Amino acid sequence: MSGVAAALQEALGDRVVTDPEVLRMLATDKSGWWSEGGALALVEPQSLEEVQAAMRIAHEHGAPVVPRGTGTGLAGGATATPGSVVLGLGRMNRILEVSLEDELAVVEAGVINQHLSDALAPHGYIYSPDPASKAISTIGGNIATNAGGLLCAKYGVTREAVLGLTAVLADGSVLRTGRRTVKGVTGFDLTALLTGSEGTLAVIVEATVRIRPIPAGQVETVSAFFSDVTAAAAACAAITAARLRPAVMELMDAEAVAAVSAYLGRSPAHPGAAYVLVQTDGPGAAAEAAGVLAVIEQAGGGGVEVSHDAASGEALLAFRRSFHPALEARGEVLVEDVCVPRSALAAMFAAIERISREHRIAIPTVSHAGDGNLHPNFVLPPGAVGVPDEVWAAADALFEACVQLGGTLTGEHGVGLLKKRWIEGELGTEGLALQRRIKAAFDPLGRLNPGKVY
Amino acid sequence: MSGVAAALQEALGDRVVTDPEVLRMLATDKSGWWSEGGALALVEPQSLEEVQAAMRIAHEHGAPVVPRGTGTGLAGGATATPGSVVLGLGRMNRILEVSLEDELAVVEAGVINQHLSDALAPHGYIYSPDPASKAISTIGGNIATNAGGLLCAKYGVTREAVLGLTAVLADGSVLRTGRRTVKGVTGFDLTALLTGSEGTLAVIVEATVRIRPIPAGQVETVSAFFSDVTAAAAACAAITAARLRPAVMELMDAEAVAAVSAYLGRSPAHPGAAYVLVQTDGPGAAAEAAGVLAVIEQAGGGGVEVSHDAASGEALLAFRRSFHPALEARGEVLVEDVCVPRSALAAMFAAIERISREHRIAIPTVSHAGDGNLHPNFVLPPGAVGVPDEVWAAADALFEACVQLGGTLTGEHGVGLLKKRWIEGELGTEGLALQRRIKAAFDPLGRLNPGKVY
Ligand SMILES: Cc1cc2nc3c(=O)[nH]c(=O)nc-3n(C[C@H](O)[C@H](O)[C@H](O)COP(=O)(O)OP(=O)(O)OC[C@H]3O[C@@H](n4cnc5c(N)ncnc54)[C@H](O)[C@@H]3O)c2cc1C
Ligand SMILES: Cc1cc2nc3c(=O)[nH]c(=O)nc-3n(C[C@H](O)[C@H](O)[C@H](O)COP(=O)(O)OP(=O)(O)OC[C@H]3O[C@@H](n4cnc5c(N)ncnc54)[C@H](O)[C@@H]3O)c2cc1C
Repeated sequence: MSGVAAALQEALGDRVVTDPEVLRMLATDKSGWWSEGGALALVEPQSLEEVQAAMRIAHEHGAPVVPRGTGTGLAGGATATPGSVVLGLGRMNRILEVSLEDELAVVEAGVINQHLSDALAPHGYIYSPDPASKAISTIGGNIATNAGGLLCAKYGVTREAVLGLTAVLADGSVLRTGRRTVKGVTGFDLTALLTGSEGTLAVIVEATVRIRPIPAGQVETVSAFFSDVTAAAAACAAITAARLRPAVMELMDAEAVAAVSAYLGRSPAHPGAAYVLVQTDGPGAAAEAAGVLAVIEQAGGGGVEVSHDAASGEALLAFRRSFHPALEARGEVLVEDVCVPRSALAAMFAAIERISREHRIAIPTVSHAGDGNLHPNFVLPPGAVGVPDEVWAAADALFEACVQLGGTLTGEHGVGLLKKRWIEGELGTEGLALQRRIKAAFDPLGRLNPGKVY
Repeated sequence: MSGVAAALQEALGDRVVTDPEVLRMLATDKSGWWSEGGALALVEPQSLEEVQAAMRIAHEHGAPVVPRGTGTGLAGGATATPGSVVLGLGRMNRILEVSLEDELAVVEAGVINQHLSDALAPHGYIYSPDPASKAISTIGGNIATNAGGLLCAKYGVTREAVLGLTAVLADGSVLRTGRRTVKGVTGFDLTALLTGSEGTLAVIVEATVRIRPIPAGQVETVSAFFSDVTAAAAACAAITAARLRPAVMELMDAEAVAAVSAYLGRSPAHPGAAYVLVQTDGPGAAAEAAGVLAVIEQAGGGGVEVSHDAASGEALLAFRRSFHPALEARGEVLVEDVCVPRSALAAMFAAIERISREHRIAIPTVSHAGDGNLHPNFVLPPGAVGVPDEVWAAADALFEACVQLGGTLTGEHGVGLLKKRWIEGELGTEGLALQRRIKAAFDPLGRLNPGKVY
């Protein structure tokens, strides 16, 4: 056992895991990427003090620390680096406080996103940032990646829901940011800076988050097929232009529709068909849904289905939610995450079709159309480890197209390891240098999640 | 003329002002505070390149730079420091682009907030951050202070409306942050970090901001008087608890009501009466207003007035909007800006009453009740320069009470010069040290707005 593992074990006892099989699995996450691995220990603290103790010991031994939630990340951000201590927050899973009056909750970082909404449901409240992984990912991981979700075009991404954080710096000292108030401008906004920092600045231990009343009224759902993805994208643009504010607006291209239809054993609509699903909520839900329906019919939508309550809406959403399982049933899935200005949505779909053709590789794609975020997917053979060059080449072409359209290389999944190669292209040399100086202000020795992002 | 002023004039000609009377006025802003003054020059650039040129020259001469919008700040943040170059952004006032499709606008930093909404109105759009100073303050200044406004409880503060920035660092280099997309997580969120940085990190030259469709339906307004401020605060809490989501919810205490009544020549409701004004908007506006009315009547509100359109709603709002003019008619106004968790609103009003009594000083107070932000005001004799000790003592007591209630010392105006004395109490020694390291990552020589905030 290494010196740092022994010291951790002495201080923290059974919070420390050194089982080689457990450590081996820490080299990967849901991205399917495998790092070189070589974690020396996994520590699973259960209190702020235990996090501090682990950080101090790692600091003294000069060991890098990789914070980890449940490892559902799609960018390789939580994968172990050689000689690292992996700090797993999953056992810090207590909801410490719910205040309906102040519409906030205080949670430990390891609380599963869905568990908070489950706890709030009896009170008629919800935690609105809803990544598709909400049943398996932690709120700390969501904050560290600034996760988005289906509802975020209307209700905001994770950043908009975080009021304050308790975090531990690389040297073991505690940093408290933000506050319990809705507003506040004392000092730089370190809460926002930590949100999306992918474990490179500090370990998030506790968060004060906003909660919202579940919107009054029924959830209305409208879904339809379109002759092709261009028509579907035009329908989504027309919905926005009509000033309708859907809670959810999802678009699936023809490859995605075909994959899900096959997976569910349904006969596909017709070749080339793309799918759009829209939900409205709140006091104006019915009127907004009627507006959506009119736009969809006007835009040539067919096979329209409509539902007037949350439960049957969820049944319609099942088609969209089956997308990831459908691909996983075929092999290893690499999920990309580009985001373009909404006006460029159709152009980005066109670019994806072109790249798919030119590189002779299927790229089934879904989109959170309400905010211009697209997830083009590559399916590798089952059990594949590493990404073949021809997939990298297609991914390169994707990012190039996206940046040319004024977009960004990651809308919600983060940079991690997988998108490091493109970051300078987006941030510029100067911008990147400044980001590195900020990193050094938090972590002068570069011990937190080294090799990720920067 | 100083060396730096001469060099600026040589490079930038009539963009540079050295008229002593103009320079003298730069020692103050709307806070009424006067700094020691001593600006060497005012530069009013009209392009990014001119900002860069000015910054480079100041950098070479070792002169501090104080960015300034229209000087409506209430924290002394834009006041000149001795030997400084004041960079006035007011002449960079072009709206560069409006994209309805992408729901964004690109503006120069000196655009007056209201001018953007005026330009958007014919298209049915609005720029929603609406500080009460929107007719006179710049969007750059609003971003630098993360300004709030009446609508922000429902539509978010300035930070939520800023997508990306072009800024110039102390050495004259250009920093571009953020993007035109709604979402994006490439790198640390420097857009959020610059928002609220009060001119201490970089000069904001251009901003890409979100715009919103003007909500469908009519604006509904309900106003009422309550026997005292505790009853009024309870009514506001009950509105939130009933899950109503007003666009505007303003509360005025008895001192404020008395001051405005006298100013408008109206007979006051009755001694001790407090005032609440609520507006609802969007597709559910009428239903929500009916809910608000029911809560207000239940909570003992009297003298109720109701209006069903924006114009007559604005007429009701005039009572609230007359607050600042009413105080200014009496003397020099010092506006405080505490913010507490919403559940502590009544307790904070009680603390203000106690402090007013104990310090024998009137503290008329208004509150954005929807987000727990209160503006207690001190009125000094006309022409007063500097703040008397007894007012500082009362202000000290205010902050102490606020922090004890879990609040923050500034909800929206910023720290500037006026609140520097309390910042360590809120951020802690460690937190403050980290903030200083971030400042150094942007501005290693400490040239940007020195002596402010930190
Ligand atoms: C089926 C599926 C669907 C998904 N859908 C979405 C989606 O809709 N939207 C979306 O945004 N993402 C989505 N994801 C990606 C992933 O779930 C999110 O990135 C999630 O936020 C990661 O949470 P986690 O707890 O698994 O974090 P991990 O994967 O363990 O870690 C992610 C990153 O955060 C850091 N980190 C984790 N916890 C902490 C902490 N406490 N302090 C500091 N740093 C920390 C890690 O170092 C790493 O860099 C999906 C993933 C899957 C598998
Ligand atoms: C009657 C009245 C009502 C008000 N109501 C509100 C309100 O409701 N909500 C609210 O939040 N505030 C309010 N304020 C305060 C003030 O209007 C805001 O703080 C506003 O955002 C300041 O804008 P400005 O252009 O006047 O900036 P200035 O006062 O000139 O500067 C303010 C700060 O920002 C910095 N700064 C300005 N421009 C830039 C730039 N381009 N780049 C970098 N730094 C810059 C300055 O250095 C300074 O620190 C009110 C003020 C008055 C007089």
